[in-house]
Order: sequence, then structure tokens, then C-alpha cells
Amino acid sequence: MKIHTFDTTLRDGTQGEAVSYSVEDKLAIAQKLDELGIDYIEGGWPGSNPKDKEFFARARELKLAHAKLCAFGATHFAKYAVDKDPSVLELATAGTPAVSIFGKTWDLHVTRALGLPLERNLELIRDTVKFLKSHGKELIYDAEHFFDGYAANPDYALKTLEAAAEAGADVLCLCDTNGGRMPHEVSEIVAVVRARFGGVIGMHAHNDSDVAVANSLAAVMAGATHVQGCMNGYGERCGNATLASVMSNLELKLGHETIGAEKLKSLAGVCRYIADLANLPLRNDQPFVGHSAFAHKGGVHVAAVLKDSRTYEHITPELVGNRQRVLLSDMSGRGNVIYKLKEKGLADRLSEDARRELLDRIKHLEYLGYELEAAEGTFELLVREALHPNVHFFEVISLEVNNKIAQGKHAMTTATVNIKAQDGVHSATASGHGPVHALDVCLRQCLSTLYPQIMSVRLTDYKVRVLDQKKGTAAKVRVLIEWSDHSRSWATVGVSDNVIEASWLAMLDAIRLELMRITAQDQTLDKAVEDYCWGV
Amino acid sequence: MKIHTFDTTLRDGTQGEAVSYSVEDKLAIAQKLDELGIDYIEGGWPGSNPKDKEFFARARELKLAHAKLCAFGATHFAKYAVDKDPSVLELATAGTPAVSIFGKTWDLHVTRALGLPLERNLELIRDTVKFLKSHGKELIYDAEHFFDGYAANPDYALKTLEAAAEAGADVLCLCDTNGGRMPHEVSEIVAVVRARFGGVIGMHAHNDSDVAVANSLAAVMAGATHVQGCMNGYGERCGNATLASVMSNLELKLGHETIGAEKLKSLAGVCRYIADLANLPLRNDQPFVGHSAFAHKGGVHVAAVLKDSRTYEHITPELVGNRQRVLLSDMSGRGNVIYKLKEKGLADRLSEDARRELLDRIKHLEYLGYELEAAEGTFELLVREALHPNVHFFEVISLEVNNKIAQGKHAMTTATVNIKAQDGVHSATASGHGPVHALDVCLRQCLSTLYPQIMSVRLTDYKVRVLDQKKGTAAKVRVLIEWSDHSRSWATVGVSDNVIEASWLAMLDAIRLELMRITAQDQTLDKAVEDYCWGV
Repeated sequence: MKIHTFDTTLRDGTQGEAVSYSVEDKLAIAQKLDELGIDYIEGGWPGSNPKDKEFFARARELKLAHAKLCAFGATHFAKYAVDKDPSVLELATAGTPAVSIFGKTWDLHVTRALGLPLERNLELIRDTVKFLKSHGKELIYDAEHFFDGYAANPDYALKTLEAAAEAGADVLCLCDTNGGRMPHEVSEIVAVVRARFGGVIGMHAHNDSDVAVANSLAAVMAGATHVQGCMNGYGERCGNATLASVMSNLELKLGHETIGAEKLKSLAGVCRYIADLANLPLRNDQPFVGHSAFAHKGGVHVAAVLKDSRTYEHITPELVGNRQRVLLSDMSGRGNVIYKLKEKGLADRLSEDARRELLDRIKHLEYLGYELEAAEGTFELLVREALHPNVHFFEVISLEVNNKIAQGKHAMTTATVNIKAQDGVHSATASGHGPVHALDVCLRQCLSTLYPQIMSVRLTDYKVRVLDQKKGTAAKVRVLIEWSDHSRSWATVGVSDNVIEASWLAMLDAIRLELMRITAQDQTLDKAVEDYCWGV
Repeated sequence: MKIHTFDTTLRDGTQGEAVSYSVEDKLAIAQKLDELGIDYIEGGWPGSNPKDKEFFARARELKLAHAKLCAFGATHFAKYAVDKDPSVLELATAGTPAVSIFGKTWDLHVTRALGLPLERNLELIRDTVKFLKSHGKELIYDAEHFFDGYAANPDYALKTLEAAAEAGADVLCLCDTNGGRMPHEVSEIVAVVRARFGGVIGMHAHNDSDVAVANSLAAVMAGATHVQGCMNGYGERCGNATLASVMSNLELKLGHETIGAEKLKSLAGVCRYIADLANLPLRNDQPFVGHSAFAHKGGVHVAAVLKDSRTYEHITPELVGNRQRVLLSDMSGRGNVIYKLKEKGLADRLSEDARRELLDRIKHLEYLGYELEAAEGTFELLVREALHPNVHFFEVISLEVNNKIAQGKHAMTTATVNIKAQDGVHSATASGHGPVHALDVCLRQCLSTLYPQIMSVRLTDYKVRVLDQKKGTAAKVRVLIEWSDHSRSWATVGVSDNVIEASWLAMLDAIRLELMRITAQDQTLDKAVEDYCWGV
């Protein structure tokens, strides 16, 4: 059966302690979730903060092929009429095809938190749903604390759903807001709701009891056909249900359809992409999609798995875009690079030697700590360099950066860069806001007469992570930089024990890649490279 | 009902990709698990490697008040008689009251991996159990791949259990070795086994489908009375069932007894202790015991939780040794600073002016882009500085960092730092792996004679994010650094448009905080500050 997927990484996910996105991050994630085939993308709460409001304004330019963007809010304040409540009006005018609103189910909340009579809460639900339906919205009604409310007062809990259903809600989504319910309770209660209401029943689980995925599956087995969660399980406290796990189980274990088998094959890549934008590592042990999810360490297991992977793998890793790894022996290789190169017709353009060399470079960089999956720009540059081994735009001769900070004064940074290009040596000295800025200014000065087009390339995000935590301040770092040239954006990566050198390496990759693209002559080849690099 | 707990952090847990303990670590963890009231501690596989063998030799000196130490192994090799198999003899002589052995359930494994007739496998099971029972061991029989084996050939799977039971096994533990089974399957299959066998049925779940905790609970609800797992869910691939979650749910949700309510109150501390010895951070979002498990960020939630914690907490955090936190950056958090200061008796120590000034500093830093919720260290320093306005350890006069990178050469970084302390001006120049390392070395050189204690403070993680992405390389960055002094860890934060200055500011906060703590005179006040800063 088709089970609808609703991702709230951009709304409930941002309640996670360490999670924080820029508006650009949010737009990029929405685009990626759409490509994955997610049905609903909850983008934020337009009435609650300026960032979410800006997101919805800019989201009008997003071209979503499949997903419905959804704005989140609440039933109207009792002190306003529904059509005068500013936050409900924000929802009506957010420009999204769908809206989700939460209402109170639990009598404790109605009387204690809202301080309202129980009947008045039913009116708030009814009026808000009706009002938003009259604006043509698809309406997802989130019954907050449904399971706790049902346990406390089942009659009243069901009345709140009735109010929403009668007013025209398209989905009745049952929320385990506190994450405290056990799977058998979810089964029982969803079955009661299923028996009583037609239409779509949804499930919104939190992981406080470490059973959010199981609760989501239990709800589907009891008749729910809409599941909410965050792709990587982000969210307040212990997080929301990990949607990647819920979807994988529904598709591969329980015979349902969510995004379909074909799109599921890109799941691990999407999870990694979201983690990178959130500047959080994707948990190695994250089921299905983590780097260790199909990694074998024990000797007995390794031997058996190499004979027959079913012996210690519950599914074929490629079904979710992951792969088997055998630890300690570095046997994994990059067979899929060759496979994919062939698929895109690029392999024929490379000699046997060039192919081997490309593979060796990739392996070496990954060994050094480069993460090419998150840095398509660096990966694309490697492929383009393999295709055009004789193209060299410039060489760096030397550079120097100096930072001075004195009590009571602004920090002073100056940089000097010397570069050898086709027409000779270029040198530049500049001061900047910081070392990365000063180097950036110098590099542009050196190259601007020869390649004026690079001036449109600008940094849009900059992230640093330590790779080997045991080495303290001497540890290696990985710098991931995002760039944009107005028509597209890409990320490059640099690794060094010196944060400035790592930044510089990532910067060079970005500029070299832009030059490679600008000077590319062969349109078909260019298209094939792009398809290849961004599809891996 | 009493459910027996079996922790395998020291055996199956070590199969996790990043997990590695010394023998000392293993002994310390065993001691801690015993204090917690765990029933069985699986210490390792004495026949498989020298470290585990040494562990069992030294474990004879452990004084365990309650737990039974357990050695792990397998049914004997077909090529040996049972009493001649060296690894079985290791088990018999490991000096533990209990042993666990795994045997094959799945016909595929017997014929493909072992290459034996099905009947021969039953003999291996029978003979090994009998032999170890004759040595007076309590015997836990781990039926490897029980659920997959049952699905493939239920008659044979049950025969393997019969073989173990008839030979005298004390526990029949059903393993979902590949972690692929869904909770409803576990329920059904455990019920079949329960109906057929007397004695203790156990469950050993893996988390590959993100439902290991749910599977463990499903097994108990179907009649199992012995649960295996790793306290923090470590283990091969996606890990074993997180025993902390399984126990908490059994005790607090399902009315069973594992270690008892009193011992459960030390659960979070034990989980943190194990994570520290494993040199892995305890996941902030780990259910029940993580730092964020009862942390509230959303404005609506914070307001409600302060009125009545049941509104957004599924249990009282103190039941598992955790506590409620209200994250600072939220609007309501600021009002909450005062509220919490009062609660801890700190408000009286601050004058009205000092309190206002503290709040203003917090607001100003947040406005600049500091994220105090993630940097308790910087927050604690602010509070301590407010409490001790006249304590100044040192002032920074100036610093300089120089980076040189030349073609084909390693990057060269040198730093110079000038500091004014009580006894005069200290200067240091040092080279380093990168600017942060060079500055760190200089700062320690300047302060080490005056404050030798700071030498134990070391960086454990380093993260950078851009704050205003529209400014390209001139953007402001936020640097978040985690530190440890062996007894505790904390994070500090620095913001600047210069990544080096931001790193430097975070570094200064860490060192100043350590000095504040070291020189704190008033034990009661010190305790109150800690409780306050870490409870917010």
C-alpha cells in the first residue's frame, strides 16, 4: 500500500539542540527531499520567527517536482477570531499547497496550558481547519499528545479528532509528542481511531523511549497511511522518528510503498547531504544509511559475508544507497566509480591508465580524510582533470598569511599570494576580515585579468570539523566550503592539520573547477560529467 | 516480574567500528556495571584474542557484589572432540561462574558456513552444553540467527533449542543476529518458543532495522525474562540493543523489575562513564540518559514545561539520573536565567547590578552570534565572573600568527603571544601544526609556570560555522570547541569575522574557566554554580 511520507527536518528537526540551518540550507534540503520523492516537506512555522518567514517567501521560487511544501502552525488563539489571528493569516498566505496545524488533545493541556474550557478547544480546532480549508489548503491536522490525551480521557481525545474531521481535515495525524508510548499502546489506539474515522490517519512519533521507528511501523500496521519524521531523526530532546529507517522498513520489510524502490537507492546520499548542511556528522551506526551500517569487523562475520552476504546482512545495502565495507582490510575499493563512469559513457573517454589514476587519487584522498560524497565540487574537479590531463590553469608558488591581534584593537589580517599562470607570475597582497577573506582577495587579484569570470564565484558557507579528536589542537581538520556562481552551487573540501591550508585547498578547488567549466568546449561531455558527478 | 539483564559492552560492543578498550578500561567498566546491578557481564571471548584472555585472568581479582561474569564462545569445532577443543577448554577454565556459547540455528549457516550435516550441528550443541555444565557453569545458550533460521526452517530451529535445553542450558537466548526482524515477528516467534520450553528465554537484538529496543520489549511481552544488549548500544554495524533504554522502559513503562528503581537513578552516570572510557561522546539525543533527553528549546514547550513538566516530559528525568534543561538561546530562556539563579541560591550572591550586567552580557553575546546553549563552558565562565568580579587571571596584550605555504613544502605556522599576568609580562613564540595549535602552545608556555594545572586541559573537538552567509569569505564565523581535563568536558564558543580570533576567544574562555574552577574557594558556591550551569 502507498504510505505517504512527511518530512519535518526543516521544522521539528530544528528543535534539536545542535541543529541550526540558514535559509539557503533549508532551500537546498527542500530541493533534495523533493528529488528523493518525499510527499510532504514541512518547511517551518511562518508565524514564529523571521527566518521561517523568509524561507517561505523564497520557497516560492523552488521548483518542486513532486513534494508539497507545508507550512506549520497551531489552532488560532482564543483571544482572536480565526480570521483575525495573525499567525493563522500567515499560514493562509504562506504560499504553500499544504498546511499542518496542531491542536490540543489532552484535557490536561487544554485546562492547564491554555486555560480554556474543553468545549472551547473543539471550537478552535473546528474554526481553524475550516478557515484554512476555505483558502484551498490541503490540511494535515496534528493531534498533539494524542496518545497521552487518549490515555487520560479517550472520549475527549476522539472528540478533538471529530472536530478536525468534520471541519474538513485531510489527514488526522496522531502525535506521540512526549515520545513516551510503547508500540503495543500505539497499535491499540491507532486501531481504535482507524475503526472510527475514514480518510488518512497519520503518525508522528518522538524517540524519547527509543522506539519511535517501531511506533511508526506499529501505526502503519494498525491502519495509518501517513508517516511523519525527520530523515536523520533530528528533533527536540531525543529527536523525531528517523524517517530514513521508517521508509526503509516499510519498503523492504513490510511490503509497502513510500518513495518507491528506485528512489530508495539514493537514500543514504540524501541523509549524508542533510547531515552535512546541518554540520552534524551522520551517525556511523545510523541504521540503513550510516557508514558502518554494513561494515564487518569480526573475523567470523567477514569470512561468512564474503561467501554469502545474507549471512550477516539483513538487506542488500545498495537498496538504500549504502554499501558493504570490510574493516581493517580496505577491500571496499571504488568499483562503483568505474561502473558509473561506464554507465554515463565517460569511461570510453579515459584511457585505462587515466581510469586507474583517477581511482587511486580518490582512494588516496578518502584515506587522508576527504569526504567526497559531501563535496561534489572536488569530485567533479577530479573527474574533469582526468578527462583533460593537460589543462593547467595556474600553479601556486607560495602564500603567507599574517594575523595580529592587540588589546583593544581590531584583528589585522594580511595575506600575500604568488601564482604562476600562462602569462607569467602574478603576486598580490591584501588585508582582509580574516585569513580566508584575505587569501580570497589575493587569489582573485592574481587571476582577475586572465580569468575575469571567476569574480562571480563566492563563498556561501564554511564549515570545519576535527578528524582525529585524540590529537587536541594538533588534530587534522576538514574544511567544507560551499560556493555559488549565481547559477549553481557546489561544495569543495580541503584537509590539513592547518585550518588555513585546508581552507586554501578547498578554495583552490572551487576556482579551478569554475575555470574548468568555463573553458569546457564539448557540451555533450560537459553534460555527461555533470550528470555523472551529481548522480553518484 | 524480574527480568535478567545481560550486558555485552565488553564483548559484542567491541565489534563497533570505533570502539576499543584497554584491559584496564574493561575491568573498570565491569566494576561499574556491577555497581549498577546488572545480572550478567559478558567480558569477552577468551579463546579469540590475548586481550580477552588477559582480561579474564585479571578479572579474578574483581570484587563483584552482584553480577556474574560471563565468558563467551561457540559450540566446539567438528574436527575436535569437545573435551579436546582448545577454545571450549578456555571457556571451562576462564574462572567465570557463567559462560555463553553460540550455536547455529539457521540451516543455511550449518550447511554453507560450517559445511556440516544438520544432525551433526545438533550434536555439537548438545555436547558443548553438556561438557560446560559438567564443569559447573551456568550456561547461556545463544541461538545465533534464531529468527532468520526459524523463518527458513522452523522445525530445525526448534530442534537446535531442544538440543541445548536437553543438555542442560540454563537460558535459551534467541538472537536476531542480523538485526533484520520486525517487532511483530519477534512477538510471534518468541511466543512459540515460550509455549514449547520451560525455563528462561532470552532476547539478543541488533539495531540494523532501528527497532532493537522495541524487539527486546516485544520479546519480554511474549514471555522472555532475560535481555541482552550494550548499555550505550555499541556493537557491530548499527549496534546491539541499547540496554539503558530497554531497562528504563521495562522498569518505568512495563512494570517489570531489572536493576530496581533505586539503582536506575544512577543509570545516566554509568552510561556517561562507559562512553568516556570508550572515548566516544555519549550521544546527546540518547534516550533517557543523553544530555538533551530532557532539554527544551521551543518557546511553547519551555513555557508549558515550567508550569507542569508532564506536559513535555514522558518521565521524571531524575528516575534515570538525568535532569531537565532549558536551552538558553530561547526568548523564554532569558527570563529563565534569573529564575534558575534564584532556585540555586545564586541570585542572593549577586547584586541587582551584577545580575542585570550578567543578563546584558548574555544578551549581547547572543546578539553577536554566540550560541551559549551549546557552550556551557562559556556560560559557566560568565556566571563565575559575575560572582567574582575582581578575579582576573591574565590579560592578553597582543598576539600574532603567521602561516607560510610554499609549493612542494609543508605549511609553516608560527605564533607569538604576549600576556600580562599577576607576576608580570609573559611572552612565548612557538611553531605548530596550524594556527590553533601554535596559539595553544604559546598560551600554555605563558601560563604554565604560574598555573601548571592548565596543562591537563586539552581540545577534543573543534567546529566552525559561518553566521552570515551573504558576506562570502568576509563572513563572521562561530567556533565551538570542546575541551576535557580528564575529569569532565565542556564547550566554549568564540565569534569573529576572523576564524583565528574566534578560535582564540574560545580557547581563552576554556583556560579562564579552568583557572576559575581550580581557584574556587567556596565549595558550596562551586557546587551551586555547577548545578546551575549544567542544569540550565
